[in-house]
Amino acid sequence: MAARGNLLIGQSGGATAVINASLVGAIEAAAGAAEIGATIGMRNGIEGLLREELLDLGRQSAATLALLRRTPSAALGTGRHKLREDELDRALALFQRHEIRYFVYIGGNDSADTAHRLHERASATGYDLRVIAVPKTIDNDLPHTDHCPGYGSIARYLALATRDAGRDTEASPQLYPVKIIEVMGRNAGWVAAACALAREDERDAPQLIFLPERPPASFDTLLGEIGAMVRDQGFCVAIVPETLRDTAGRPLGGGERGYVDAFGHASNPGVGAMVTERVKEDLGLRARYDKPGTMSRMSILAASSADLAEAEQAGREAVRRAVGGESDLMITFERADDEPYALTYGTVALDRIANTERLLPDDYIGADGRSITPAFRRYALPLLGEPLPAYARLDALPWPSA
Amino acid sequence: MAARGNLLIGQSGGATAVINASLVGAIEAAAGAAEIGATIGMRNGIEGLLREELLDLGRQSAATLALLRRTPSAALGTGRHKLREDELDRALALFQRHEIRYFVYIGGNDSADTAHRLHERASATGYDLRVIAVPKTIDNDLPHTDHCPGYGSIARYLALATRDAGRDTEASPQLYPVKIIEVMGRNAGWVAAACALAREDERDAPQLIFLPERPPASFDTLLGEIGAMVRDQGFCVAIVPETLRDTAGRPLGGGERGYVDAFGHASNPGVGAMVTERVKEDLGLRARYDKPGTMSRMSILAASSADLAEAEQAGREAVRRAVGGESDLMITFERADDEPYALTYGTVALDRIANTERLLPDDYIGADGRSITPAFRRYALPLLGEPLPAYARLDALPWPSA
Repeated sequence: MAARGNLLIGQSGGATAVINASLVGAIEAAAGAAEIGATIGMRNGIEGLLREELLDLGRQSAATLALLRRTPSAALGTGRHKLREDELDRALALFQRHEIRYFVYIGGNDSADTAHRLHERASATGYDLRVIAVPKTIDNDLPHTDHCPGYGSIARYLALATRDAGRDTEASPQLYPVKIIEVMGRNAGWVAAACALAREDERDAPQLIFLPERPPASFDTLLGEIGAMVRDQGFCVAIVPETLRDTAGRPLGGGERGYVDAFGHASNPGVGAMVTERVKEDLGLRARYDKPGTMSRMSILAASSADLAEAEQAGREAVRRAVGGESDLMITFERADDEPYALTYGTVALDRIANTERLLPDDYIGADGRSITPAFRRYALPLLGEPLPAYARLDALPWPSA
Repeated sequence: MAARGNLLIGQSGGATAVINASLVGAIEAAAGAAEIGATIGMRNGIEGLLREELLDLGRQSAATLALLRRTPSAALGTGRHKLREDELDRALALFQRHEIRYFVYIGGNDSADTAHRLHERASATGYDLRVIAVPKTIDNDLPHTDHCPGYGSIARYLALATRDAGRDTEASPQLYPVKIIEVMGRNAGWVAAACALAREDERDAPQLIFLPERPPASFDTLLGEIGAMVRDQGFCVAIVPETLRDTAGRPLGGGERGYVDAFGHASNPGVGAMVTERVKEDLGLRARYDKPGTMSRMSILAASSADLAEAEQAGREAVRRAVGGESDLMITFERADDEPYALTYGTVALDRIANTERLLPDDYIGADGRSITPAFRRYALPLLGEPLPAYARLDALPWPSA
């Protein structure tokens, strides 16, 4: 049995709709673990430890925890601080002062790196510390796990919202034939691809997805593809990731084609605004853009029931592993089956997570480079939780009948 | 009893999450009316009549109608065509050819104008036609009605989404102290004001709402207010309507402060992008913006149960009034009580709707000009349907306890 000690929990990186579910899972698991004394939270990630901005999580009311499970964002606050070498020693000293033997860090791969370095420093100094990371990123770009908590919820939000926005374009293509939707996702196309998960036929949005894995040769080729789709289908809803680059790696949302304001300052209003402006100017087509931004990342409106449950369970697993004596690991999701969807929980060494990213595999990307495959749908649909509600179109019954 | 004849239905103006509920209500009411023969739909508003792009709505399957009730956008397609004088005569001829005696037009105030002119032309030529408009606009700016179908749903969406996005800013103000949310709403602040409906205290977003009814003196004063809020509160979520102007009427999203691209073309990336860029440049604060755009207008995710039910009932009322012999009217909502919320349906003459708009009344706007009053909350909250789900923050229990 592991040594009795306190548990420290932190949240780090971009907040999501389900990161508090992981926090609640960890707090509740700790309450049931005899090895754990106090459960302590640090404000705004590792900076909160260094500043000793600490909270007693073990004495939170049941009512607070119940609501927190469905409250988006990071209740502890979050941060992106990269620990300096001297701060590692200070962190270790604070672990000792507060008798912390267990450390659960909920975050992405930068957080995994921080957790790994703390584990290493503790080992080197002979301090008994169990460090477990809980994955968290809407980008879904962590390796060695089937998927990441947070992804299922942004995927559900964007699948539904893209379909809704697409119906708008379909209803009046003579007014606005082009709609651009700018989405998040860093260097990987997981989030952009999810926009197509409610698509059933060619009338459904999106008509084009510009995946980072299949960059357009240039801004002009991107515009050409949009123009061709409008000629073929009558309208086009196109998904553009905020980090979209051309094949030479130049960002399409700025750089040499960026805007210069009236005072001569170079500026970057975002790729959605840029593409929309150029569709209007270069193609002469009326266009609008949506940029759901942080709303898509944080929305509890469309949170996936599967994602919420898995995020919470990941928090529980982290505590279970830590008190069981494991350390220097991140919790992973291992898919047992697609249909019915079944998941088990595993681990991966932290040093295999930090500074790596997982792109969309080729077999999830359509041959045209602008769509998704049935394999991606099989992968992603279970992550969205409840089935997506069905929509109708009017039956094609002309008046007068023939 | 009115003459037996066919019913023509159209949808016009910007689509919403609930405009198909009005369509279903009208179709179902017509099915039960002995005075109505066929129920005919026109594609893309009045243009569909002129082109005789007509659909048999009376023979739609029950399954289609059931799904359509919760399918956003305009299933008939929508348009914004302004009838020319010569087209009025052609429209009348087509009413005669298709034996149309009842006309229900679902739309905003331009549609009310079209409906009114058709009624007038029919009267002048002695053609017996009953014309009823069903209101529809997320902007909520039609006069003589308590509110408009579509508003409750965008209000619910933005209340929840603003709260979600605000929690993100609150969780890491040291990273991004400013968030800008660009919303729709034409010249009135109804939509912008709705962003504050989930706000309970000063930590909740939005900290500032720039209502069209209370324009900032200039871009610089707007920036000054954002900067002051960051100094006071540590962060600021600000709502900016897409049409925001300064007190001199100059659009803040473009015009003389608009962007010029690398080729020298004047451009307008939108007020959200503009304000965000200037917060970064002039205030030196990291900022991001969300622009939910058509997603907020079309979202069935957050559709208000009250709004859906009222939109459908408005469609039914229109048919009931028409077969009862009334004409040249728009259906209105009359509030019988706030709590419990109770609504009755009335009418207003079409010529009192066209070319007018209703701004936020003064008693709905806080004395600071950047917030809403309890009176607005009393007005708007019932329109959102089910109560908004509660969120939690962690109980403030420091570790170690004092």
